[in-house]
Amino acid sequence: MNIKYYLKNLKDRIDKSLDEYLPSEKAYPKAIHWAMRYSVFSGGKRMRPILAIESCKVCKGRLKDVLPAACAIELIHTYSLIHDDLPAMDDDDYRRGKPTSHKVFGEANAILAGDALLALAFNIIAKEANGRRGLEVIRELSEAIGTRGMVGGQIVDLEFKNKKLDKKTLNYINRFKTSRLFEASTKIGAIAAQSSKKEKAALAKFGTYLGIAFQIVDDIIDEEGYAKIFGMGKARRESKRLIEKAKGLLNIFGSRSTTLKEIADYVLTRTR
Amino acid sequence: MNIKYYLKNLKDRIDKSLDEYLPSEKAYPKAIHWAMRYSVFSGGKRMRPILAIESCKVCKGRLKDVLPAACAIELIHTYSLIHDDLPAMDDDDYRRGKPTSHKVFGEANAILAGDALLALAFNIIAKEANGRRGLEVIRELSEAIGTRGMVGGQIVDLEFKNKKLDKKTLNYINRFKTSRLFEASTKIGAIAAQSSKKEKAALAKFGTYLGIAFQIVDDIIDEEGYAKIFGMGKARRESKRLIEKAKGLLNIFGSRSTTLKEIADYVLTRTR
Repeated sequence: MNIKYYLKNLKDRIDKSLDEYLPSEKAYPKAIHWAMRYSVFSGGKRMRPILAIESCKVCKGRLKDVLPAACAIELIHTYSLIHDDLPAMDDDDYRRGKPTSHKVFGEANAILAGDALLALAFNIIAKEANGRRGLEVIRELSEAIGTRGMVGGQIVDLEFKNKKLDKKTLNYINRFKTSRLFEASTKIGAIAAQSSKKEKAALAKFGTYLGIAFQIVDDIIDEEGYAKIFGMGKARRESKRLIEKAKGLLNIFGSRSTTLKEIADYVLTRTR
Repeated sequence: MNIKYYLKNLKDRIDKSLDEYLPSEKAYPKAIHWAMRYSVFSGGKRMRPILAIESCKVCKGRLKDVLPAACAIELIHTYSLIHDDLPAMDDDDYRRGKPTSHKVFGEANAILAGDALLALAFNIIAKEANGRRGLEVIRELSEAIGTRGMVGGQIVDLEFKNKKLDKKTLNYINRFKTSRLFEASTKIGAIAAQSSKKEKAALAKFGTYLGIAFQIVDDIIDEEGYAKIFGMGKARRESKRLIEKAKGLLNIFGSRSTTLKEIADYVLTRTR
């Protein structure tokens, strides 16, 4: 099957669930629900939930076991984009060609829409997952987005906004601001499938490498970060090396890993 | 025992745990950990965690069963204060006589400190609580702070910032911006104690009334909100009425409810 077509179908399935989980725009207080939906449905590729779902599948888990957590991950990704775009942070007016949340709804509503998406994400997992598995998913996700994860990466990124980035700091930012949530996504897929420790560890590492490669490809497209510091040639080689390393980790799953490997290749070749 | 002395002791116990849960100021990235600690340790009364603990005790639960969740509630309360104080929101320079987070650390770090406290709160519960009980706590807490809870109250509060408040809207704001987290605190105490449905419901209602009374007393002190719209006399009578109603709900617990009732009286008479 064509991987792009496959991913498009999966994205539609995820979008349907996100639509069900998000409060209606007609529900009071409307302004906040409108703002939440605006950012969630503004053209994301759903890479992280797709990775969670495919990681669950490669461990012989079912879609329904992972779908709530996968949606929660996308809500958390959306919250992080809204807050990162704020004037006090990266001060971006546009994202994916559309005005950013604070441009449309004002700063206060944008901050609160992010806060509410974060709360909703944990609510979905707590409601839909059962017992120990749900708690393990929440533990992993809350760690991935805290100060030793996404927020930690963002704060260091901001600190170095107008300073020269050294390689160590750049690696830290890529690892924690971007890659940590990829790692959580693949790991949560494995947790949802109740897979073995060995499979979980392999998928976590797969997510880590894929996430760093994803960020480097982003930098190549934008001629920023990694590509700016190390040059285009090195950036291309490094992203390719990481994707090969990531795919190698999936060999323990045998032929079941075909889709995840194709997704890894897709990350490398995407242009936006 | 003198209730003020009792509450001071309990506050010290909570502060000790908060200190243990919060990452060290020396841990990388330092700036964010410093900002988180600054706001958590800036003179809060720990009303919400105290209510969670005493609600657990009144249901014959143990301190250690509720302490992690009680601390998580205080972290969430702190996150909400940091974000509410932001220039885009209430734009407050001081809180409890100290400069607000964004005044000390800048807006970006204040936003991220709030985000990180929220993530840490759920991480603590997921790590410390076991099985179904932990998930029920997270479900309750994440609902209480979402768009049908605290964030919902804050967004309506902001909408009416420069408009004349009607009684219905004021009640909505008090109920959701303030009282909903009180309700979650008392309810979580009951959940942690694995108490009966009946006791849980009584404590939830107790928290609701107490929370609204707490907000009205705040308004009396600041000559704002309820006191401004209804007048001082009506505000005093209404807060007293709510406290009596709240205390009445505790009669099912017999003599075990003495401390919670004293706390309710304390809320009524506090001056700050």
